[in-house]
Amino acid sequence: MTKDSDNKKTLYGVSQETIRALEEALEEGQESHVQALLKPLHAADVAVVIESISPALRYLLLNILRSHFHPDILSHLDETVREEVIEQLGTRAVAKALSGLESDEVVALIEDLDEDQQKEILASIPELERGIVENTLTYPEESAARLMQREIACVPGFWTLEETMKYIKEGPHLPEKFYDLFVTDPKHAPLGSVSLSLLLRHPPSTTLHEIMDTDIKRIPALMDQEEVAHLFQKYGLVSAPVVDETGRTIGMITIDDVVDVIEEEAEKDIMHLLRVTESDFFEPLFSTSYSRIRWLMITLLNMLMAAFVISQFQHTIESMVALAVLMPISAAMSGNAGMQVVTVTVRALATRELGGVNMSRAIWKETLVGLFNGVFFGIVMGCIAAFWFSDSALGCVLGGTLVINMVWAAIGGVVLPIVIEKMGMDPAIGAGPFLTTTTDLLGFATFLGFAHLFLM
Amino acid sequence: MTKDSDNKKTLYGVSQETIRALEEALEEGQESHVQALLKPLHAADVAVVIESISPALRYLLLNILRSHFHPDILSHLDETVREEVIEQLGTRAVAKALSGLESDEVVALIEDLDEDQQKEILASIPELERGIVENTLTYPEESAARLMQREIACVPGFWTLEETMKYIKEGPHLPEKFYDLFVTDPKHAPLGSVSLSLLLRHPPSTTLHEIMDTDIKRIPALMDQEEVAHLFQKYGLVSAPVVDETGRTIGMITIDDVVDVIEEEAEKDIMHLLRVTESDFFEPLFSTSYSRIRWLMITLLNMLMAAFVISQFQHTIESMVALAVLMPISAAMSGNAGMQVVTVTVRALATRELGGVNMSRAIWKETLVGLFNGVFFGIVMGCIAAFWFSDSALGCVLGGTLVINMVWAAIGGVVLPIVIEKMGMDPAIGAGPFLTTTTDLLGFATFLGFAHLFLM
Repeated sequence: MTKDSDNKKTLYGVSQETIRALEEALEEGQESHVQALLKPLHAADVAVVIESISPALRYLLLNILRSHFHPDILSHLDETVREEVIEQLGTRAVAKALSGLESDEVVALIEDLDEDQQKEILASIPELERGIVENTLTYPEESAARLMQREIACVPGFWTLEETMKYIKEGPHLPEKFYDLFVTDPKHAPLGSVSLSLLLRHPPSTTLHEIMDTDIKRIPALMDQEEVAHLFQKYGLVSAPVVDETGRTIGMITIDDVVDVIEEEAEKDIMHLLRVTESDFFEPLFSTSYSRIRWLMITLLNMLMAAFVISQFQHTIESMVALAVLMPISAAMSGNAGMQVVTVTVRALATRELGGVNMSRAIWKETLVGLFNGVFFGIVMGCIAAFWFSDSALGCVLGGTLVINMVWAAIGGVVLPIVIEKMGMDPAIGAGPFLTTTTDLLGFATFLGFAHLFLM
Repeated sequence: MTKDSDNKKTLYGVSQETIRALEEALEEGQESHVQALLKPLHAADVAVVIESISPALRYLLLNILRSHFHPDILSHLDETVREEVIEQLGTRAVAKALSGLESDEVVALIEDLDEDQQKEILASIPELERGIVENTLTYPEESAARLMQREIACVPGFWTLEETMKYIKEGPHLPEKFYDLFVTDPKHAPLGSVSLSLLLRHPPSTTLHEIMDTDIKRIPALMDQEEVAHLFQKYGLVSAPVVDETGRTIGMITIDDVVDVIEEEAEKDIMHLLRVTESDFFEPLFSTSYSRIRWLMITLLNMLMAAFVISQFQHTIESMVALAVLMPISAAMSGNAGMQVVTVTVRALATRELGGVNMSRAIWKETLVGLFNGVFFGIVMGCIAAFWFSDSALGCVLGGTLVINMVWAAIGGVVLPIVIEKMGMDPAIGAGPFLTTTTDLLGFATFLGFAHLFLM
C-alpha cells in the first residue's frame, strides 16, 4: 500500500486527466485527438486506458485503434477485458497484430481463446511461426514449455569467445535480446551458461568451456509453472534452459516470463482462501455474481448445518436465553483462529517452507499455540460471561468451550491443508471451507451441549 | 499448488533422506559426515536444511559451519531464523562472511538487525564497502535505494562500441554480472540503455547514442519498493537506473532484486486480510501466539458487541426460539460476501487496476452484485426458513434481512478499502475487521429487530 499514491501515479503511467480528456474526445468523436492523446503512451498504459473506460467508450476506442493495433497492448490486458477486445477486433486483425510478437507471447495470448478462435488466428499467421506455436500448444497448460521462448542462443563449448562473438553478430536465429548463452553438447543437452558480461571480459582465444558456469538448472518441459517460479526465486536464476524428455534443449525461460507467475501464484492461493477467483475484478456483472454465489453456497450450507445443531437445543435456549447471547462467540473465535492457521499453512506449503521433515514440528507448534490462545481467550471470555450474567457456571462452560474449539481449530488448520495436499488436491480451495464447517458445528454443539449437561 | 510435489522436490533441492541423514549425523556428532552431506548443496538448500531441523540440531549444525559460513546462506534464510543464526554466529563471524557479498545484499541482511549489531558488523567490514552500506542505510526502509546495487555500468553516449567493449574488459568498478549498460550525460543523468546483446550485434564504430534505447524508466531513490515492483512488472523491465533528487544516477535495480518484493507484497496484503503476519511460519511459539492474539482481539470485541446486540432482544428470543436458530445466518452470509468484495477491492487497489476513473463504476457494479446475490440468497433462505418453521412471516423477515445485509456488505466492501486508502492507511489491515464488525452487528440487529417489529 502506498501513502502518496497520487504522487506516484503521475510519475509514470497515465494520469486521470489524460483518461478524462480521452473520454471526452471519444464522446465527441474527435478521432485525431484520441490518437494524439494515445500516441505518447506505452502499450501497458494503453491497456490501462482500455481497462479503465466504460464498455461503450471502449467499443469506440477499439474502432479507432483497430487498423494499427499494437500487439503488446493485448499482452498487458486483463484476461476478461482481453477476450472482449479480441472478440471486437476479430481474428484477422488480431492475427495481423500477433505477427509482431515473440513465440512465447503469441502462445500466452492465444492459449486462453476457444478452439475456433485459436484455429482462425493460427491459420492467419506465417507458417514457420505457426508451427512453433502449434507445437508449444501441445504441451499442457501451466507447464514450463508454455512459458518458454523457442529463440535461444545455444553454442558448442569448444568455440572460442571470438568465434562466439562472430556468431552473435551474424546469427539470424538468435532472440532479439538475451543475457546468457547456453553451451550445449552435440546432442543439444545444456552443459553450462555464459553471461554476456563474462564473454566481454575474457581474452578472445578463451573457449566457452573454460569460463562457463556449470551450475545451471535444467527445466523439464512438463514442469509446473509454479515449480518453475519457485526454482527461479530460490536459486536467483535469470534464465534457464528448458529440456525435453531426452534432455535436449528446446527453449529457454527468462525471469521476466516468471514474474507474473510468481504474483499469480501468491495471489491465487490466498484469493481462494477468501473465496474469490483471481480474475474477479474485470469480470462482467453476472459472471462475478455467479462465481461469488458458488463460493457463498458453502457458507449457506455451513449455516444451515449450524442452524440444525442449534435447533436441537431449542428447549435449552428457551430455559436460559443467555445461551443465545453467547453462542456465536466460540464459533466465531475458533473459525477466525482456524483460518489464521490455514493461511499460514497453505502459504508455507506453497513456498515449500513446510515439507516432510518439519511437519510434525509444525503440527505440534500450532497445537500449542492453539492451546495457549484457547486458554487465554477462555479465561477472558469466561470471566466476562460470568460477571455479565452473574453465573460462574455459565462462565466455565463458555471458557471450556473456547479452549476445546480453539485447540481443534489449530490442529485442523494445520492438518487439513497437509492432508488435502497429500491427496493431490489444492489446499487453498478445500481447507478453509472444510475447517470453518467443523468450527461452526463444533462451536455451537459443544457450547450448547455443555450448557445442557452442566447448567440444566 | 502442485499435484505431484513429491516428484518435483527431488529434482532440485534437498531430499528428505538427506535431511534425515544429516539429522542423524548431527545427533551422533559425526562432523565430517555432516560436512560431506552439505558440500554438494546450493546455499539456498543449506538454508532450507537450517530452517527444517529442530533448534537443538540447528545449534550443533551452526557450530560446525561457523568457521566457513557461506554468506549466501544468510540471504536465503527466513528472517526469524536468520536472526537466530546471526545471534549464534556472533557479529565478527557474520562480518567476515558478509565481505563476500555485493552491497545490496549486505544492506538487505543488516537492515533488519538492531542498531548495536549493525554498528558492530559495520565496524568489522572494509572501509570502502562500509561507506557504501552506511550511505544506503540513510535511505528509508522499503525505498528503491535500499533495493539497488551501487555497482552499475555507466558510459558516455559518444563512445563507440569498440571503446565500450574495451572499457568492459578492463573496467574495475563494474558489477560482476550485468545485462544492460546505461548511457549517462556529463552530469551523470541516465539517457538510455544498451543491452549487451545489442552491443555485440553492431559494427565496432557505431556509437552508443545511435543504438541506445531511450525509453527507460528512471527510478527515484525514495520510491516505495512496491511501486518499483509495480513498474518492473507493468513495463516488463529487466534493469533500471536509480536517480537521486538531482537526477544523477546512483545505482541500478535489476529484476531479480524485485522478484521477492513482488511476492512479498502480493502475500502481505492478503495475509493481513486473513489476519496473520507474513513471517508467522518460522516465528517461535510465543511470538506467534502473541501476534495471533492481537488479531483475534478484534474478533473478540466484535463478538462482544454482537452479544450485546443480541442481549437487547432476549425477550423476543424467549418468546420465539426459532430466532436463535436462524440468527447466525445473515451475519455469516453478509460477513463472507463482504470479505469477498474487500479482497477483490484491496487487490485491485494494490495492482492499480482500481484507480480514480473507474471507482464509481466499481462501486456501482459491486452494489448490483450484492443486490442480486442478496435477493438470490434471501429467496432461498426465506423459503427454507418458512418451510422449516411453518411460518411464512419468519421466512420473509429472514429473506428481507439477507437482502439488506448483503447489499450493505457489497457497498461497505468496496467503499471502505477505497476510503481507508484515501486516508493514507493500509486497506488490507483496516478494511476487513471494520467491515465484519458492521456486518455482524447489522446482521443480528436487523434480523432480531425486524422479528420484534413484525412477528411479535
